[in-house]
Amino acid sequence: MANAVVSQSGGPTGVINASLVGVIEEACKHKEIDNLYGGVHAVAGIVKEHFVDLKKISLETLEKVADSPSSALGSSRDKPDEAYCQRILDVFKKRDIRYFYYIGGNDSANTCYIVNSMAEKAGYDLRAFHVPKTVDNDLLVTDHCPGFGTAGKFVACALMGDDLDNRALPGVKIDVIMGRHAGFLTGAAALAKQRQDDGPHLIYIPERPVSMDKFLGDIEAMYKKHGRCVIAVSEGICDDDHVTWAEKLAETAERDAHGNVQLSGTGALADFLAGQIKGKLKIKRVRADTFGYLQRSFAGLQSETDVVEARECGRLAVLYSMKADNGSVAMKRTGNGAKYGVEYFRTDLCNVAEKTKAVPDEYINADGNGMTDAFIEYAKPLVGTLPETEFLGNYPTV
Amino acid sequence: MANAVVSQSGGPTGVINASLVGVIEEACKHKEIDNLYGGVHAVAGIVKEHFVDLKKISLETLEKVADSPSSALGSSRDKPDEAYCQRILDVFKKRDIRYFYYIGGNDSANTCYIVNSMAEKAGYDLRAFHVPKTVDNDLLVTDHCPGFGTAGKFVACALMGDDLDNRALPGVKIDVIMGRHAGFLTGAAALAKQRQDDGPHLIYIPERPVSMDKFLGDIEAMYKKHGRCVIAVSEGICDDDHVTWAEKLAETAERDAHGNVQLSGTGALADFLAGQIKGKLKIKRVRADTFGYLQRSFAGLQSETDVVEARECGRLAVLYSMKADNGSVAMKRTGNGAKYGVEYFRTDLCNVAEKTKAVPDEYINADGNGMTDAFIEYAKPLVGTLPETEFLGNYPTV
Repeated sequence: MANAVVSQSGGPTGVINASLVGVIEEACKHKEIDNLYGGVHAVAGIVKEHFVDLKKISLETLEKVADSPSSALGSSRDKPDEAYCQRILDVFKKRDIRYFYYIGGNDSANTCYIVNSMAEKAGYDLRAFHVPKTVDNDLLVTDHCPGFGTAGKFVACALMGDDLDNRALPGVKIDVIMGRHAGFLTGAAALAKQRQDDGPHLIYIPERPVSMDKFLGDIEAMYKKHGRCVIAVSEGICDDDHVTWAEKLAETAERDAHGNVQLSGTGALADFLAGQIKGKLKIKRVRADTFGYLQRSFAGLQSETDVVEARECGRLAVLYSMKADNGSVAMKRTGNGAKYGVEYFRTDLCNVAEKTKAVPDEYINADGNGMTDAFIEYAKPLVGTLPETEFLGNYPTV
Repeated sequence: MANAVVSQSGGPTGVINASLVGVIEEACKHKEIDNLYGGVHAVAGIVKEHFVDLKKISLETLEKVADSPSSALGSSRDKPDEAYCQRILDVFKKRDIRYFYYIGGNDSANTCYIVNSMAEKAGYDLRAFHVPKTVDNDLLVTDHCPGFGTAGKFVACALMGDDLDNRALPGVKIDVIMGRHAGFLTGAAALAKQRQDDGPHLIYIPERPVSMDKFLGDIEAMYKKHGRCVIAVSEGICDDDHVTWAEKLAETAERDAHGNVQLSGTGALADFLAGQIKGKLKIKRVRADTFGYLQRSFAGLQSETDVVEARECGRLAVLYSMKADNGSVAMKRTGNGAKYGVEYFRTDLCNVAEKTKAVPDEYINADGNGMTDAFIEYAKPLVGTLPETEFLGNYPTV
């Protein structure tokens, strides 16, 4: 018997707590695991031995945790170097922690990988497992990531309503959506389209750099066609020189510990783009919203697919750790549409750590300003059911 | 037998379509009403005789309409003067329209009032009825307005999730919420609080001007106490000279037809406030989101109380129009908590037209930076059920 620790790292999602509860429920079934510590605020809390006894949490509370957005154990943006990882390992040794479950993105997989490698070198038997989590959906190996479906549902519902709002009071509307390097979440805006002329009429993702001229030309054409235009834009949208507009805007931009420019939590990009459209296209009613943290943390909204898969990923991390030394939980899709399903499997940490996936070419239209049917087929089952809406303003006149 | 027209005006809401369907279903029961025209894009469409035959819409479609956010007949920001109203009246005469149902805010009530007065002077028998709608909840006479509960539910769910996000990654978070003059919707953020130390820790509404010094002092104190601070701010927040911060910011601000400064659809106010906090309080992690149009048009989210009441208000406008010359539908609360309920009644248009209600003093705390229990009691039944959430990071350490 030995002890285990589970933590949550990076940006919260709507189902990262379902993964946590998956870890807890499975860990409770294995006599190999004695204490199950919840490491508060990720690695930052682990090195300070800030641990919660997760076996003492009631089932009723756990079910509430599974339904709650954000990271119930707190999170951290710390990116541990080797010295930091040594401190983690020291705590593990002191507490006889032999199982480490870390729920997060590719940086978290890397932390798992470093700590596991160091343990191996030190001859300390440690099972380090990564549970995938990211609204960006940019992890390698797995078909998709827990967290994406729920954020995608938020984005689709937001665009669906926003498009109806734009029908009621026509103009140009820009919605800036999370995604520095990968455009999956912004792409999910395409799921809002139910009718031929529904918005979003244009979608820009970081995988397809776009010049301001092309951007404005696209909008002008759509505005001419529909008398209005709804646009979904990734926060990581690039100029055709591959430099992000946000970077160009923000000379003094705040950078996080990973060296990324701070794009969320400010409306500057949206306001800049709206200003360009107002100024250069002379369109009067131009509005811009930045979805910000709502898209990852809105309470009471989960994709029914996502929450089940997230929990299963947590559960399987524990199951796999009984047999293997390290790993990340991944999903393989077994069918689409009504036959949607996944098989879960273990992959080595080194296959996931630090690597990122971009939106594949076949999911992006030839113009680089929209998503293909193949993307819709990919993303639709992940976000789960969406509302059906109606608009009467286009009905025949009498 | 004569014809009727129904239209939707001003900013969309999540339940304005439920009111529309209420009008349609009731109008279909009365043999006094022959054709039921849907006036597309409010008064702007009425003067162009842009009408949809609402009796031809299937029941199945109508139920989808009732569930859809935004204004299914389109909207307009036109504020008709007497000449404009004369054109409306001319169309009414031409089409033998004797019943006019107008779903909107106090400006819409005023349009109803003017058209009705002009008809009376001209000896034209017209029944003009206003169906209340506004996310701002600022209409007189009625206890509350359809549209507020659903927007309030969005705001509460957003703050609930955002507060958990802020617990996971602590710092200062500002959320800018709709409301130029009335702080009801921003006040609904208070419903997100489930635990003693939950955010929002501070709430600022237009009814309580606040100097930048007091604003920053409040935040510094909360940040010291909780190690973080979540703040809900009305877009109409005023400096202590009663000039809005938005107005001060925006020398070149766009104004709508009603002379209001354009506050929604830009992140400028949020970014300005975040900049003040970063610069003057030297707090590093400061984020700001502007909820924008999502709070009035998010698809798939309705307060169960609000949607029922909105439909009933539409239905009763038709019923009242069978007996009275003009009116606005209003609600009187008959109980609170588990005994929550309303009685509906007719009030004269002149009691509602152009007038606005502010948040009463007893709903605002003494410091002017939060809501009282009396406000919670008032607002809670209107937003309907809210999710329950959990956070484990504060549990005892082991």
